[in-house]
Amino acid sequence: MKEVTVRAPATVSNVVCGFDCLGFAIDGPFDEVTVRRRDRPGVSITHEDAFSLPTDPEQNVAGVAVAALLAEAQVDFGVEIVIEKAIKPGSGIGSSGASSSGAVVAVNWLLDEKFPPAKLIEFAMEGERLASGSRHADNVAPCIIGGFVLVRSIDPVDVVRLDFPPLFATVIHPQIEIRTAEARAVLPELVPLAAAVKNWSNLGAFIAGLEHGDYDLIDRSLVDEIVEPARRGLIPHFEEAKAAGLAAGAIGGGISGSGPSIFMLSKTRERAEIVRTAVSEIYEPTGIPFNTYVSEIVSQGTSLR
Amino acid sequence: MKEVTVRAPATVSNVVCGFDCLGFAIDGPFDEVTVRRRDRPGVSITHEDAFSLPTDPEQNVAGVAVAALLAEAQVDFGVEIVIEKAIKPGSGIGSSGASSSGAVVAVNWLLDEKFPPAKLIEFAMEGERLASGSRHADNVAPCIIGGFVLVRSIDPVDVVRLDFPPLFATVIHPQIEIRTAEARAVLPELVPLAAAVKNWSNLGAFIAGLEHGDYDLIDRSLVDEIVEPARRGLIPHFEEAKAAGLAAGAIGGGISGSGPSIFMLSKTRERAEIVRTAVSEIYEPTGIPFNTYVSEIVSQGTSLR
Repeated sequence: MKEVTVRAPATVSNVVCGFDCLGFAIDGPFDEVTVRRRDRPGVSITHEDAFSLPTDPEQNVAGVAVAALLAEAQVDFGVEIVIEKAIKPGSGIGSSGASSSGAVVAVNWLLDEKFPPAKLIEFAMEGERLASGSRHADNVAPCIIGGFVLVRSIDPVDVVRLDFPPLFATVIHPQIEIRTAEARAVLPELVPLAAAVKNWSNLGAFIAGLEHGDYDLIDRSLVDEIVEPARRGLIPHFEEAKAAGLAAGAIGGGISGSGPSIFMLSKTRERAEIVRTAVSEIYEPTGIPFNTYVSEIVSQGTSLR
Repeated sequence: MKEVTVRAPATVSNVVCGFDCLGFAIDGPFDEVTVRRRDRPGVSITHEDAFSLPTDPEQNVAGVAVAALLAEAQVDFGVEIVIEKAIKPGSGIGSSGASSSGAVVAVNWLLDEKFPPAKLIEFAMEGERLASGSRHADNVAPCIIGGFVLVRSIDPVDVVRLDFPPLFATVIHPQIEIRTAEARAVLPELVPLAAAVKNWSNLGAFIAGLEHGDYDLIDRSLVDEIVEPARRGLIPHFEEAKAAGLAAGAIGGGISGSGPSIFMLSKTRERAEIVRTAVSEIYEPTGIPFNTYVSEIVSQGTSLR
């Protein structure tokens, strides 16, 4: 194969009680990533979008991810990467993760699927390291393998695909900027053991709820008293938006990634649309521009177009 | 019904990464609890064992649990409780929980199963409050409903029965005393957020491992860097015993409850017996008296004899 195009989905990470270990893939928006084999070693990047992302491969998340892959593959050729970016950078729905995941999955196709998913996650995390200063897999793992993914460990990579019932995500992206450093600085370094116990009890119950298809349990366990209270102040109108989503019948939700996007879960697409309307009504009068998406949580991750 | 006898199983709580929220019932030892309806209101207690437990109902875990039940049931009769105790108090395998659970389940039979399991758990927790100074359900919930139980919340009671593959527990009870106050005092009040994230990632993976019947995942996720490091020093030879169990092929284990018992999990009864031998060889030369049990983790909780 000389050229491959893949679609890499947006992802929601953290997922309330699953801070730093849970994420899921949604059925759009997608980044499209095309990779072409070329004789000259190394990586070049072209962006087909309006986001002014760096094209220097060493400064680009897809570039560093693919460089890590090529270094391990020990091939003598290079690749051109063309990224058609639909997931807005800084939105909190895995934009950097989609670029790096899409690129490594595509290059892996050029190499006849030489590497297993765990290795691809490892390479894609190099992009996350560049984007946020730390390796984390809760976006790239669901982006690459799809579905609802628990990241048990990143070193070594150990991820688990969870079973889950039909679920639809409403994502609202108020277009404000949250700097990664700020989102991190508000997190406590130490947490009371009692609060940690409460969180892991909720995470355990949430996972059992997903596995059993128990929507009520999912609803009851989507609680976060550690990270959400620290970060919600960074997202204007977060609490009203969440309350409006719940009042409209969502079964829970919270901050997507480190924000500013907010996600709410619903049992049906119809309900997720009602939730979209309800949350939009919070943001419309504020003058803050915002995007919304309604997407099913899907088993498919990054796939050939 | 005038008289009922039930068998209430021993339970293992905490379960490494499931501190304060996970527990499972084993297939023995059991306490046998007989309750008899009598005309005079109130509760009387008889113990048929050698443990010198209090028979004053206000000082007895079964007594306070049944008193809470009778108060809510608003009945005009009383009950005599006879407890044939096989689970040694202070062993760390749910001895107090078995007495109080057995008593409330038995009295509930006298009342034609008036109360649902969540209420019985609530009443039985009054016994735990008396025994340890705090209400907790990670022994009484599996003791009452059986199986592997996640306690999402105790207020209100919200417990989840997990699916699990065949699992056998080897329990070793080195007969030393650990005072509850001491086991509590060694716990940190604050934990690093990073350590908490690691723990909830492991707990999530452990639950997924149980639900999927994935023994390797169960093995990898039975890790606890918060409570075990704080408490293991209270149990002489804990680390050698655990290492011996793992070397003998156990798929993980740790402190049962707040100790001093240690549990190890195995895929088969044969393996659990080999683990028993291996761990016994650690304690035999020490002069510390110890009991061992090999039991399947069973779906049945407290049941009619």
